[in-house]
Amino acid sequence: MKSTMNVRYAVIGAGNGGMAMAGYLALRGFSVNLYNRTREKLESLIDNPVITLSGSVEGKGVLNMVTDRIGEAVQDVDIIMVTVPATGHCHMAKAMAPYLRDGQIIVLNPGRTGGALEVYEILRRSGCGKSVVVAEAQTFIYACRATGPDSARIFSVKHEVALSAIPAKFTRRVIRLLSGAYPQFVPAKDVMETSLNNFGAIFHPAPTLLNSGHIERGQSFEYYLEGITPSIGQMLERLDAERMRVARALGVRAVSAREWLEESYGAKGDTIYEAIQNNPAYKGLTAPKGLDTRYIYEDVPCSLVPIASLAGYLGIDTPAIDTIIRLANMMTGRNFWEEGRTVDKLGLKGLSVTEMHQLAQTGEIMKTVVREQEVVA
Amino acid sequence: MKSTMNVRYAVIGAGNGGMAMAGYLALRGFSVNLYNRTREKLESLIDNPVITLSGSVEGKGVLNMVTDRIGEAVQDVDIIMVTVPATGHCHMAKAMAPYLRDGQIIVLNPGRTGGALEVYEILRRSGCGKSVVVAEAQTFIYACRATGPDSARIFSVKHEVALSAIPAKFTRRVIRLLSGAYPQFVPAKDVMETSLNNFGAIFHPAPTLLNSGHIERGQSFEYYLEGITPSIGQMLERLDAERMRVARALGVRAVSAREWLEESYGAKGDTIYEAIQNNPAYKGLTAPKGLDTRYIYEDVPCSLVPIASLAGYLGIDTPAIDTIIRLANMMTGRNFWEEGRTVDKLGLKGLSVTEMHQLAQTGEIMKTVVREQEVVA
Repeated sequence: MKSTMNVRYAVIGAGNGGMAMAGYLALRGFSVNLYNRTREKLESLIDNPVITLSGSVEGKGVLNMVTDRIGEAVQDVDIIMVTVPATGHCHMAKAMAPYLRDGQIIVLNPGRTGGALEVYEILRRSGCGKSVVVAEAQTFIYACRATGPDSARIFSVKHEVALSAIPAKFTRRVIRLLSGAYPQFVPAKDVMETSLNNFGAIFHPAPTLLNSGHIERGQSFEYYLEGITPSIGQMLERLDAERMRVARALGVRAVSAREWLEESYGAKGDTIYEAIQNNPAYKGLTAPKGLDTRYIYEDVPCSLVPIASLAGYLGIDTPAIDTIIRLANMMTGRNFWEEGRTVDKLGLKGLSVTEMHQLAQTGEIMKTVVREQEVVA
Repeated sequence: MKSTMNVRYAVIGAGNGGMAMAGYLALRGFSVNLYNRTREKLESLIDNPVITLSGSVEGKGVLNMVTDRIGEAVQDVDIIMVTVPATGHCHMAKAMAPYLRDGQIIVLNPGRTGGALEVYEILRRSGCGKSVVVAEAQTFIYACRATGPDSARIFSVKHEVALSAIPAKFTRRVIRLLSGAYPQFVPAKDVMETSLNNFGAIFHPAPTLLNSGHIERGQSFEYYLEGITPSIGQMLERLDAERMRVARALGVRAVSAREWLEESYGAKGDTIYEAIQNNPAYKGLTAPKGLDTRYIYEDVPCSLVPIASLAGYLGIDTPAIDTIIRLANMMTGRNFWEEGRTVDKLGLKGLSVTEMHQLAQTGEIMKTVVREQEVVA
């Protein structure tokens, strides 16, 4: 069995999360290949492959490789840590498919809703044919920012992050391998659980849209503590109740946003609004400085749309979620219903709830003999 | 023919608009009965019936009567100026129905969308049986505030306000009678025109909801100049396009919000956002200090809902308007679809577009002999 300290990593994406993660893994002595799609972002690190970390973790991490060639980046690594926005998962999966090897592990940090399913389905359809495990984290492990072309700041590290793999029977193996770097990962039952307990769906698009005047003007304010007022909180309760209804219909252990605030931060309250007000960890988390933010462009298509699509598939009404998606479409001029993750894109179309969990557990669709022969893991 | 200077007025509602209007009419020498539903608001004026005006108009107006009895207020007056929020039109119409006399004129300041139709329909259903003219102004003539129990401030007076009566053949008579006090009123073709060119539908609910964080926190900002950003402006364009589509389907000369900003203020721009930025008259108009505002509680049920209801009746889709109504419902916990003005409440159910205009023009529904006998004017 591979030592958890000899794991070789690729980190995909040199944004805020990728820079912090690559820097940390390298600082901890792991071999790290850092990939970014555009070479410009990497120029400085190509010259000198050292990331300087500040904040919760301080020090310098020396990278094994810095590259804009995906084949090079994933070659010979054990774990591929994907840190690009969830909207990029599809593209990255297609790009790396020809280069993957049996036994490699892809970890989406985080998957948002349906990330692992979407990537798994893309690999299947691409005819990749290798036994690859696709895992997703429920949230990103850090609050962090890239502070320059070769530096990042880690504001805080989460104590516990749920993770699940497809096939779910490999979840514990993935967590064990990651534990040398990140002992914080804990197993979820399957990717339906990590995907449906995606609180970005609740906390990101609605408060952003309902504060869009001030956000678009670039005015600074506390995103959670000031931006989520009692009426906005009431909207979040509705969104959360709909998410929970879909989760329960899918047989997923659904944690409410209020429970999650208490579990994760010890922040108590009778309502989401109260619990947020009682969460000192949110202090200093300011709002995005424009509407061109992941809180809309990532969390509408990759968090709300898949929940709404699953709801529609199961015959559950989600009027609040639908309203926020429509509003986002109208405010941006995009069509997130089309761009976003649907039951079809997640490879779940035609499956019963039991079959969805079978797919998540085994990586195989039991129902159709034809598809059974095609699956990779 | 009655002299325009001998017109006797009742002003219904002692809020911001009612106090300014009653004070002004009295100051100009007209006989004014001021009514308010709750007596508390009137205590000071009952002791001493004098309203002090400041701002664009300065001076003291002595009222003829101050009362919380509606029968007393409307008795012997020629024109009943209703200044209560549009959500109160229904109640006021029912309350005054038993006391109305032939030839009296009710003017809704403003009607929002369908105010005159709703009041006319209520009088018809109540069996009032008198020949009463019901008119609506397209907007309120002042920007003003009550500054105390016996004072009001008029910030500005509009140069031109469209008005129409049911029956529309009496519109010019109403405008002539009002002209002694308000030469600003100009005739609209009929109440369909004043109702569909209600710009409160565009400028009030959406920007309020999309700035709800800051509004609910009571933070001061320029409602139009800061609150309407490019993306919010894009939302307003969609709302306005839907309103125009409904108006055109109703055979109404629809003015776009952008045209209206240019006509009313000389504010030009390629978009609503630009025209607003180029409108110095909006300077100083700050946002409401809470979400418990007429911009939601009046303009959703009495501006957006009737437009959406007419659209549904005519088979026109209004996705943007529907989204704002749904959002308002979810943020407030109300059901504005039910509370608001529907085609049925406006007395338009079963009518063709031609018949709607006939009703507006003549006060009679030509179609059904039964109803023809019932109508009042």
